[in-house]
Formats: sequence, C-alpha cells, structure tokens
Amino acid sequence: MIFTSDNWAGAHPAIAASLNAHATGYASAYGTSEIDRTVEERFNEIFGREVAVFFVGTGTAANSLALSAVNRPGGVSFCHSEAHVIADECGAPEFFSQGARLASVEGAEGKMDPSRLEAEIARYPKEFVHGGQPMAITLTQATEAGTVYNPDEIRAISKIAKAHGLPLHMDGARFANALVALDLTPEAMTVDLGVDIVSFGATKNGCWCAEALVFLDPAMATQAPFIRKRAAQLFSKSRFISAQFDAYFENDLWLEIARHSNRMAARLQQGILASPNARLGWHCDANEIFPIVASPLAETLTEKGAMFYEWHPPRSHPNLVKEGETMLRLVTSFATTEDDVDRFVEALG
Amino acid sequence: MIFTSDNWAGAHPAIAASLNAHATGYASAYGTSEIDRTVEERFNEIFGREVAVFFVGTGTAANSLALSAVNRPGGVSFCHSEAHVIADECGAPEFFSQGARLASVEGAEGKMDPSRLEAEIARYPKEFVHGGQPMAITLTQATEAGTVYNPDEIRAISKIAKAHGLPLHMDGARFANALVALDLTPEAMTVDLGVDIVSFGATKNGCWCAEALVFLDPAMATQAPFIRKRAAQLFSKSRFISAQFDAYFENDLWLEIARHSNRMAARLQQGILASPNARLGWHCDANEIFPIVASPLAETLTEKGAMFYEWHPPRSHPNLVKEGETMLRLVTSFATTEDDVDRFVEALG
Amino acid sequence: MIFTSDNWAGAHPAIAASLNAHATGYASAYGTSEIDRTVEERFNEIFGREVAVFFVGTGTAANSLALSAVNRPGGVSFCHSEAHVIADECGAPEFFSQGARLASVEGAEGKMDPSRLEAEIARYPKEFVHGGQPMAITLTQATEAGTVYNPDEIRAISKIAKAHGLPLHMDGARFANALVALDLTPEAMTVDLGVDIVSFGATKNGCWCAEALVFLDPAMATQAPFIRKRAAQLFSKSRFISAQFDAYFENDLWLEIARHSNRMAARLQQGILASPNARLGWHCDANEIFPIVASPLAETLTEKGAMFYEWHPPRSHPNLVKEGETMLRLVTSFATTEDDVDRFVEALG
Amino acid sequence: MIFTSDNWAGAHPAIAASLNAHATGYASAYGTSEIDRTVEERFNEIFGREVAVFFVGTGTAANSLALSAVNRPGGVSFCHSEAHVIADECGAPEFFSQGARLASVEGAEGKMDPSRLEAEIARYPKEFVHGGQPMAITLTQATEAGTVYNPDEIRAISKIAKAHGLPLHMDGARFANALVALDLTPEAMTVDLGVDIVSFGATKNGCWCAEALVFLDPAMATQAPFIRKRAAQLFSKSRFISAQFDAYFENDLWLEIARHSNRMAARLQQGILASPNARLGWHCDANEIFPIVASPLAETLTEKGAMFYEWHPPRSHPNLVKEGETMLRLVTSFATTEDDVDRFVEALG
Repeated sequence: MIFTSDNWAGAHPAIAASLNAHATGYASAYGTSEIDRTVEERFNEIFGREVAVFFVGTGTAANSLALSAVNRPGGVSFCHSEAHVIADECGAPEFFSQGARLASVEGAEGKMDPSRLEAEIARYPKEFVHGGQPMAITLTQATEAGTVYNPDEIRAISKIAKAHGLPLHMDGARFANALVALDLTPEAMTVDLGVDIVSFGATKNGCWCAEALVFLDPAMATQAPFIRKRAAQLFSKSRFISAQFDAYFENDLWLEIARHSNRMAARLQQGILASPNARLGWHCDANEIFPIVASPLAETLTEKGAMFYEWHPPRSHPNLVKEGETMLRLVTSFATTEDDVDRFVEALG
Repeated sequence: MIFTSDNWAGAHPAIAASLNAHATGYASAYGTSEIDRTVEERFNEIFGREVAVFFVGTGTAANSLALSAVNRPGGVSFCHSEAHVIADECGAPEFFSQGARLASVEGAEGKMDPSRLEAEIARYPKEFVHGGQPMAITLTQATEAGTVYNPDEIRAISKIAKAHGLPLHMDGARFANALVALDLTPEAMTVDLGVDIVSFGATKNGCWCAEALVFLDPAMATQAPFIRKRAAQLFSKSRFISAQFDAYFENDLWLEIARHSNRMAARLQQGILASPNARLGWHCDANEIFPIVASPLAETLTEKGAMFYEWHPPRSHPNLVKEGETMLRLVTSFATTEDDVDRFVEALG
Repeated sequence: MIFTSDNWAGAHPAIAASLNAHATGYASAYGTSEIDRTVEERFNEIFGREVAVFFVGTGTAANSLALSAVNRPGGVSFCHSEAHVIADECGAPEFFSQGARLASVEGAEGKMDPSRLEAEIARYPKEFVHGGQPMAITLTQATEAGTVYNPDEIRAISKIAKAHGLPLHMDGARFANALVALDLTPEAMTVDLGVDIVSFGATKNGCWCAEALVFLDPAMATQAPFIRKRAAQLFSKSRFISAQFDAYFENDLWLEIARHSNRMAARLQQGILASPNARLGWHCDANEIFPIVASPLAETLTEKGAMFYEWHPPRSHPNLVKEGETMLRLVTSFATTEDDVDRFVEALG
Repeated sequence: MIFTSDNWAGAHPAIAASLNAHATGYASAYGTSEIDRTVEERFNEIFGREVAVFFVGTGTAANSLALSAVNRPGGVSFCHSEAHVIADECGAPEFFSQGARLASVEGAEGKMDPSRLEAEIARYPKEFVHGGQPMAITLTQATEAGTVYNPDEIRAISKIAKAHGLPLHMDGARFANALVALDLTPEAMTVDLGVDIVSFGATKNGCWCAEALVFLDPAMATQAPFIRKRAAQLFSKSRFISAQFDAYFENDLWLEIARHSNRMAARLQQGILASPNARLGWHCDANEIFPIVASPLAETLTEKGAMFYEWHPPRSHPNLVKEGETMLRLVTSFATTEDDVDRFVEALG
C-alpha cells in the first residue's frame, strides 16, 4: 500500500531488461550512438514531425533548459501557483535562466485560469522596461493536482501565448498519464494545440532516469546542444537513457503503464467515493488522487501500512480541508496492484 | 580494437546486475533510501572519516558543483591548461559558479607546474579588487594525459593552496585508475595530502552513470544540498546511482576494474615501446596512452579496425609531433581485452 | 505642478555646487580618495557605529548587491508585493543573486503584514530542499505607497527575521523621508530595530546620482568589494558620488530637503482632504500621496498643467478605485514649491 | 606631476559647467528626457548613421553589457591577454554573460596578433559541443599599452570576425585618444572597418561619469534596454550623463581634450627619448607611455613629486625589463600641463 509517489517504484521489468541487454559492447558516447539515433527517430514518429530531442537526467533539468532556451533578459514565465517548476525545483528554472522570474497564476484544480493568466501578463506592459518582459508560459500536464488540461483548456492558454508572442512549454513529467486520460496522440495533445516545447518525462512512468527535452520546432533548438552541455546534462554513456526509452516505446509499453496507473487511481477513486469516511478534494483524471479524511483516520491508515504524503490544501481553495481533517495524496504507478488498492479502500472503511 | 574512450564501453556485468536486482520494490526517493545510506557509509569507510557525499549524474556536474560550493565573487580557479574543466565542459564550471573564471596553468604531461601555479596566483594580489580573487585550485587525477600526480606532486600543490587559503579540488573522473597506479588508499591520496573536495568518478570505470561529489570535511558542504538540487542533479530514483556504487565497491570491484584497465594500457605501452613504428608522447601511468606514428600508419591502423582519436600535441610541448606524424590517444577500460591490445600492437608492426 | 516623481527634479543647488567645487585637482580613483574616506566617516557618525559603506550608482544596484551579499543557493527573499525590488527592477535582484527568488507578501498600505510574512516563510520548511530556502527579508522605507513603517512595525518584522536566522534589508530609496517622518536617528530606525543592511538612497532626495550600500555590521561585507566591482558599480572618479554625499550631509541638508518634501506632501494632503472632489487612497506619511478623483477630473488636472502618473489600485485593496475613478500618484521633492501645491489644490476644486 | 591615471583628474570645466547648468528644472527620468534624445541624435551624427545608444555608468558596464547582448551558451570571447576586460574587471564580463568565457590572445604592444587569434578560435571547432563556441571578438582602442590599432590592423581582425560569424566589439574607454591619433572619423574607425559594438568612453577624457554602449546596427540592440535595466545601469536622473555628453561633443571639445592629452604624452615621449636615463618600452600612440628606468631613479622621481604606477612587463615580452630596472606607466589627461611634463623630464635627467 505504498502511494507516496510514482518515483518510489523502481524500474519496470522491461526497462530494466533493456538496460541490461545494452550493457555490453561499445557505443559512441555523448548521444551519438546508433540507439540514440533510433530513439530520436521514435520521437519524430510519435510527434508526427521532425522534432529536436535532447535527453537529460531529471525533470527539473528538462524544465529549466526549456526555459533557458527561450530566455529573455528580465524575463518572466507564467505558471500555476502549485506547479512543479515554482514549488519543487529549488529555483532551478530561475538559476538556469539567469534570474528570469516565475510568476504564479491561480486557478482551480491545478490549472491556470486563462483570465488570471491574462491579468498576470498584463502586469508587464511592453515598453515598461522596469517591470521586465513576459518570456514564456509553462503548463503542467498532468497537473500536480492529478488533473488533466483538456484540449479546449490548452487551446485557451495557447491562444494567449500566441497573442503575446510567447512560447508555450508543457511540463510533461506525467505526459503519458495525461495522454491516455485524454485518449489523444502526442501530436494532438501538443503540436495541434500550439505547444512549442515539451518536457517529456518517463521516469515517473516506469523508467529509472529518462527525460527528454523536445522542441516541436527544431528551429527553436539551435542553441540547445550548448545549453544542455553547459548544464552538465550531456551524459557520456547516453545509451543508458536511450535504452530505457527504446523499451519504453516498444509495443506502446509507455501507454500500457500509464493506463495501468490511471486505472489503479480510478479504482481508488471509486472506493473513496463509496466510502462514508472520505471525500475527494476534487476529481482525479490521471494517477494522483487527493482524499480528505478525519485526521485520526489518516493515522489509522498509516498504522495499517498505507504510505502516502499528507497534503496542503490548494491556494485556490484554502478552506477545502476543515479543522480536524487531513488531505492525503495518493499516487499510483506501474507497481501498484489491485490488491494494494483494495486493501487501502478496505482500511478506509 | 576500440580505444576511443573508456566511456564507449557499457556497464560492467556486475554493475548491470546490481541495477537489475534493485529494480523491484519501493524505495524512498531523492537520495533518502536505505541503499543511498549504505553507499554513503561506504564512502566514509573508504576515506577513513565521515565525509559528505552527493551523487550526481555527470563528471561535469561534480566538478561544477564542487567549484560552486567554494564560489567567491570575481573568483578565479586554477587548473592545468588541458584539464577537463577548462577544455571539455562547455563553460559549465563558470556557468554554475556565476561567472567565476578558470585560469590555466601550464606544466608538462598534463600536470600543473607548481612554480607556474604560484606565478598565476600572484597575478591576483589581495586588495587589487579589479583583478578578482583566487578561489580554488583544481587538479585532475589521473590527468587528461594519462599521467598521475604522485604524492609529492600533490603535496606541492596542496602546500600552495594552503598558503593562499584556497580549497583544493581533485577531479577524479579516473580516480580509481590513479589510485591503483599509486597503490594508495583513497584517504592517502586525498585527505593525507590536503585535498578538500573530490569529484569521485565511476562512470568511466565500468558504471553507467555514477558520479559522487565528496567533501572530505562535511563542514564545507552545508549549502551543497541546495546547490545540487538547484543544479537539477538530485535524481528522484536515486537508487539507480547507489545500486551502481554498491556493486562498484563490493569486493573491491572498482579497484579490480581499474587494475585491469591500467594493465591493458601498460601492455599497449610495452608493445609500442617495442615497435620500430611508434614512439610514446610520454610515459603512461594509468589507462590513457599517446603514441606517435607516421600519419599513413594511423590510417592503416584505422583500416585494420582500430578505433581511437587523433590527438593534438600538448600546449607545453607544441613541437612534440612532427610534420607527417600523428599522435593517437588510446584509452582502455574494463571491456578491453588482451586480444584487443595484441591485435593493435601487431597492426602497428 | 510636476508631481510625476522625485527623480524628475535635477540636483539641489548645494549638491550641484559641491560637485562643481570638486571638479578640479587630482584624487585617487575607485573609492580611495580623501573625500571618499571623509564621507565614509560621516556614515559611521550617522549610524553611531563603524559601518561598511559602498557607493553605487542606482538604487537597483544597492538593492541587488545587498541581496547578493547574503545569497544562498535556492534562496528566497521576502518583500511586499508592490515593493520596488519586485515590481520595478526588471529582475535585477534575481539576476545578481544567481536566480534567488523574490516572494511577495501582501499587506495594507505598502507594508508587509507580519502574519502573512510568517506564512510565506513557512512555505519553505527547513530540510525540504525542493522548495529552496529562505534567505532574506527586505522592507521598503518609506514604502512605495508613501507610508512609513513605524518602529513597532519594523520590530515585528525584525523579530521574524531573527527567529528564522534571516538578514533584514531596508530599501531606503526614500530613507530620509521616512526618517524625518518618524523623527528618529538613522541608528534608531535601523540598528536599534534589527536592520542589517541599508540601501541608503540620496538621488531621490536632491542628489544627481548617489546611493550607498551600508552594512551595519562590517563583518557581513567581506565579499562586498568584489561583489560591487563585478557588478560594474565601482566608479573610477568616485568622488563624483562622495562630493554629492559631502554636501548632502553638510548642515543636515538631507534632513532639511526631506522635511521640505514631506511638508509639501502634507500640504497636498490637507488640500485633498478639504476638497469635495477627491479622497485619499490612504494616509500619506512621507512624500508620495495617492488621491482618487473622478476620471474626467484627472484629465482636467492634466489640461491645467498638473503632471503625475495614474496609479493602479494596490493588490491588497483591489476595489479601492471604483469604475469611473482614477487614482493619481503625486510625489514631492526639494523642487516642489508651495505655489505648485496650491495651484494643484485649486485646480482640484 | 601626476601621471597615475587619466581617471585621477576630475571633470573638465566645460563638463562641470554643463552639469551645473542642467541641475535645475524638471526632466523626465530614465533616459527619456529631451537632452537624452538630443545626445542620442549627436551619436547618430558622429557615426554617420542611426545607432542605438545606451548610457551606462562605467566602462566595465559598457563592456559587460556589450558581451551580454551577443551572449551564447558556452560562449567564448577573444581579447588581448592584457585587455581591460580580462585583467581589470573582476570577472564582470563573465558574470553578466552567464559565465561566458574570455580567451586571451597574445600579441605585441597590446594588440592581438591576427594569426594567434585565428589559432585560438580554431580551438573551438563547430560541432565540438564540449569546448563551447566562439561568441565575440573584443579589441581595445586605444590599447592598455597606449598603442592604437591602425585601420589595417582592425580590418585584419574584423575579417576574422566575419569569417567566423562573430560580432566585433571595440572597448573604446580611450576612443577619443585613438581617434585623434589616427585622425579618422568615428565612422571610419568603426563602421567602415567592420566594428559592430562600441563601448564609447568619455570618463577618462574629461567627464565625471559618462559611458555609452553603442550598437552600430540597432537591430542588435532589441534586448539591450532590458539588459541594461536588469544590470542596474539605467539611471533615473539620466540627464546627469547626457548633460556631460552634451558639453563633451559641443564644439568638438572631446577631440580637443584628446589631442591635448596625446600631445602631452608625445612631449613626454620626446623627453624620454632624449634622456640618457630612460628608454621606452615601446612607442606611444595615444596618452599612455611606458618608460623603463633604473629602479633607484624610479624612487628618485617619486621623491621629486612624480606620481605614476610601476608596471609589469607585458606577457608578450617578459624579458623587456631587466633586473634592476623598473617600468613606469605614465598617463596624461586634460589636466596635464606642459609644466608637469617638463618637470618630469627634468627630473629624469
């Protein structure tokens, strides 16, 4: 009953096996080997176009380098107030972008409210050099709240981005979970909706350590090789990343894993909705779910062996969690079993 | 006959097996799991004291964060003119250290000449704010030239560092190769000689991707957790690094691998010395060797299946390679076999 | 009737004369001349202790270097949401501090609410490396809203700073205006209340270009000479700044100018309060005042020759300004005359 | 007999008077006033084209922002080994350019040797991401050695810049001295020879504090307003800079001052050449001259009231100064008189 995070699971057996299979033999280093090329080609197929792909080691790196690539002096990037980039990356995006700022935008259920986004951007009028200048918009898909921006919601943000000449970045640490939730192709969830750059995460979805920074228009990536190397993110034995991606894409393993995780979360949701002892903070779209329970019950669950993080109420709904209640965050992964879920629901009562 | 680089080899079977063995089950993330702790304890044992260890993904990261940790405004770090930090890291050390400069010091065979080091430091007198201020000395062990600083040589540099109040960093991308070449303990090659910080590399010596930033005095590391996270080098499933290190240290595998690599290089050296068709640029101490051959022979070797990089003459000996000659760099690794070596020597004629 | 900003005025005649008087003769450069020393000594007298003083060219520089001097990786500084550092410096504080973040704290009338400040700091718990770490608190005195923190208010913030081990910075771009409003000594407004670093502004109060970064404890300033020089803020003919300060302090000219400016603002306030056509956004303590008028009247005032900026309602009181109304910002300076004020009040009707 | 530096002199009387004259009255702030516009127009006239001009406070700022404006990740700028940017700016160019490196190029008499420049650039081959990438060439005119690049010499460097697609920056801290030495127009010394960006210094030539960053092609300056503001170099009462420039250009005062300074240096040179007790390090073109004397004579000169800095021999000619000799640096300015010179020469014997 471990629901702490999808990064507490190790590697999916197929990923581990692929790494093992590629351990022998020589391959040229620093992203130049055959399997690196093969995987890059897979990205082209997935996105239905030639894209520029850069493997990196962490999601923080992918996000930070994405913003570095569109850096402007005095730049301001807009993100949800609970987004990973602003809440969980120790200032890495600002550090890598030479001090460019992240401005937080509120919105329910982890999604930026388009009208608030407009209002935030409006605080930086053109020609008012003192304020700085808008530089990018970044959205998280799936969000930190376990929800998923639907196509109309992405389109609304993309429209604002275009109107202001801002690149649109998608933090896809849980890209696959969002994708299967929406039942879209990668192209349909990004290119077709005006997304420009994707942090394509695979670590949380069954890999050891496999993240890719994807520029949907390679013309945006001319400086990216230097940006990555300068950021200490060019791995010598880069096939250790590409071998993971190779298995990840093989026979749509990535979608299968994401479907499994989302299904486990949906099963949890069903159990929570049916329980008289819990209610949902909000609807779960992907693989994170936030039930609210009486605080003693949270302790009981822990005693019964469930592991999870207690969560803070979102800034947009500060009164969601009442006195004496506790909100939990439950995250599912490839390793979550129906048995885990059922035991948790049973413990819930 | 692949001698291009020790990072063209994949992972040693024992490393790959360990990773595989740790793929299942849950473990807490971001460097907090049991195996992370176990490996950190191994580092304490190896260095004979409590040290502060931070796993990172690349050698460039280890070096850059080491210098960030001792950063000073207008700072200048001193390194050999051919050192990896200055020649091969795309400015990462300067980038991470907020523009702190690397000043190059000449010296034969990849080693800083202490008197030239003194002369370079003297260019930044205290109180002359315009020039900036010395900040650190960094030496590479084994060097990029395949040589190894002996204890007296390290002591000479360390003495200068202490005299100027500068921390001494050791770029140990090939730490193990140097260690077995000198037949010293890690403690004897670092702590006892006045080294303060070590980039402890394992990737080139048989791992996939395992580097550690080691502060020999934990008091120097108070800000390091934030420096690492901000640098996007804190891995979520960090056990993928610690599992490698676990196997690496088990039964002294790391020393065994390094001894093998050095032995293969020594065998190459023997063959080269015995050949009428090649001479050595300089003596090889570790696992890199630099023969000089007539340029047509270099082509012949390639045709016969040998792979290597052509190398530039060092700045300290610009006339080492004559017109019509080519200097080769040959690197050995855990994957190099006696047969590889013998076929190369035979091809040399 | 020019009330746009105190930096639209030129230099006070005594300042201009001093500069003129020091134009001839030689003086050693880069802050080492006799008059530099003399003025530094004046700062010691003013603050009642030995302080470390660094002349810089702009208030933005003083603020940015103050934060650089206390920089921490992943650092977060706390300021009011309308503070100059976050609203008007194009990201300079973040840029100079290697990406350290500014977190905004709400509060009425331009002053941070201590309980909200506590709540913001609490978002960065010790040991949660992902969030970053608190690094400093910075308050603006007088505030951007023309108000002044009274001693109790500063003490409340200072207490929070001490509790969290954070240095307290005071952006004193309008230091003198606050000082005479409170009728305190510099020491009483800073040292005695727990302030650590002051951006001591003189430009807005009658100088051309004279700002000083003052560390009330010189031990905090050991790296400041390098921080300033690296920031391109060490002026060669530095006496052009010290000559201004010399006249500024002579016979308490600075206090006299500030008293004049504040008096002119108070006279404006009196007229506004007496007018049926305007009301105050809030009480004015120093030399900035924010009346609210019917929008057509704002236009009429402009036509009659009054110059000012239209201002946005503060974030803390978004509904302060009704539909059809306009809030004005009026700033007084050494150059403001009673006649300017009276004509404005008359125009107001 | 003060020959320490041209920045030990104060302000030329006409500069001081202009500042005084502009002290009264209101003017819009931050570079938007009428006199700012007028002076910008003067720059257009001087360079014979529309240029983009940004006033800044120090030469270090001008140089650092010039390089920031052409910044590339992993970038390397090439300069003479004794250039101000690398020797005297405490790492500011690297700091402002996010760690971009300065690579030093040798050459006699303070001028880069074109063939060595080519060799240095060649160390950063395209596609070798590890080394970084060339980003700019910067030359100093007049040089730190008091010499002046003639048009052919600038053209040779410019040709290399164009061949590699690199912008060419001119550090013109002593622009006027070089200009009158060559008897060229600003356009002829820059635009016509392929220079792209100029740090246009006036401080050393009689102003208090007046430097301009000039982009000869305004298209290169689109981000410069933000780069300057973020660098804390946008002055509120900016007319204090433009008023200086206004007088500086009036009736070609700047050229007159530069001619005077150069003439004083030439008179010094004549005296030195005629003296049996001194020889020249090299020929003086502008307003800095480097005689070599027996060390006891250097002391005698000091006792007789001469002030100057002792200088180190250039890296290109380490043996220029013999044991028992001292090289002096003498700098002349608007304030230097014939009497100063003649007394020095007399003291020389």
